[in-house]
Amino acid sequence: MRFSPLLDELIKSLQVLPGVGPKSAQRMAFAMLERQRSGGRRLAHVLDQALEHIGHCRQCRTFTEERVCGLCTNPKRAVSGQLCIVESPADVVAIEQTGQYQGRYFVLMGHLSPLDGVGPEELGLDKLADLLATEAYQEVILATNPTVEGEATAYYIADIARSQDVNVSRIAHGVPIGGELELVDGNTLTHSFMGRKVFSEQ
Amino acid sequence: MRFSPLLDELIKSLQVLPGVGPKSAQRMAFAMLERQRSGGRRLAHVLDQALEHIGHCRQCRTFTEERVCGLCTNPKRAVSGQLCIVESPADVVAIEQTGQYQGRYFVLMGHLSPLDGVGPEELGLDKLADLLATEAYQEVILATNPTVEGEATAYYIADIARSQDVNVSRIAHGVPIGGELELVDGNTLTHSFMGRKVFSEQ
Ligand SMILES: [Zn+2]
Ligand SMILES: [Zn+2]
Repeated sequence: MRFSPLLDELIKSLQVLPGVGPKSAQRMAFAMLERQRSGGRRLAHVLDQALEHIGHCRQCRTFTEERVCGLCTNPKRAVSGQLCIVESPADVVAIEQTGQYQGRYFVLMGHLSPLDGVGPEELGLDKLADLLATEAYQEVILATNPTVEGEATAYYIADIARSQDVNVSRIAHGVPIGGELELVDGNTLTHSFMGRKVFSEQ
Repeated sequence: MRFSPLLDELIKSLQVLPGVGPKSAQRMAFAMLERQRSGGRRLAHVLDQALEHIGHCRQCRTFTEERVCGLCTNPKRAVSGQLCIVESPADVVAIEQTGQYQGRYFVLMGHLSPLDGVGPEELGLDKLADLLATEAYQEVILATNPTVEGEATAYYIADIARSQDVNVSRIAHGVPIGGELELVDGNTLTHSFMGRKVFSEQ
């Protein structure tokens, strides 16, 4: 015997959360039972509602409980004619936090990975082709991750965009701002040299 | 705008869990939405049930959804006549995992801490006194933590036990088995010297 059946089951259920093992699940269960009963009940309710109602935006595929998400319905985001392609909703948040980008997004919810059965259809690329064919986008900005899979996915999407006569760009990769050159890996440094630009004095 | 209202609320609600900040709450929400929908729904259900039904054992105060917990109802645990006093249900688990202790427990659910309003009543010490007066215990084993508060609590309980003519012992503190002497703090080492025993050759 470890705990009562219900407490055992709570500790087991909490381990569905990423990064949560038996020890931290136990700590979480005790913390909620000891001093967060109402917060815990609230979490149970919201979690149930979220998993029942949150699906994908019909247009950009990000997570939303609405048919079409807030970014896609905002007419201001259409003005620039830009469509930024990212791998996950977390990437949208990261880009939005810079406050620099005013266009729309398309969220792949992954990257091409044939061995895992993730092909163009799983990433909604047919939907993306439709979108580029029907709406007047000026530029597709590829912001997939700088990994082998992310690059392959970027190439694949670039082809789709070019076949629709839409300009394609890729976000820059190189030495991070504030980073030290000697601490950057060779691959990044190589990228950084290949992507060098004419230095203008002003 | 960060996410849809429901997703925002899920990320906020998850932060009720100890050690979970905005970043990991976001990662947890995405992980469940992406690939753990049924595990997440199960967690929501179990969490709700646990927080509604789990209370404290009427006898030892540990967490249980029953009136009296499994350890307290098991007649085999009464044979030794030992009662081990611990601060939390996690301590019960730790001691049970050694497989060496066969007696019962009393779980304080904290330690004396007058500044935080935790006095003898909050720790159920009136209930403990009743228990020692009505049941025939041979020995009270004090296993509160070796902290200032844990020690003060141990002293207080020792007085209660002695007033009922019950033997009182304190678990040993010293250098951990397998630990290196030079890495142990001075306080533990002092304890370890004061608690030294005659070395018997056998
Ligand atoms: Zn959208
Ligand atoms: Zn009990």
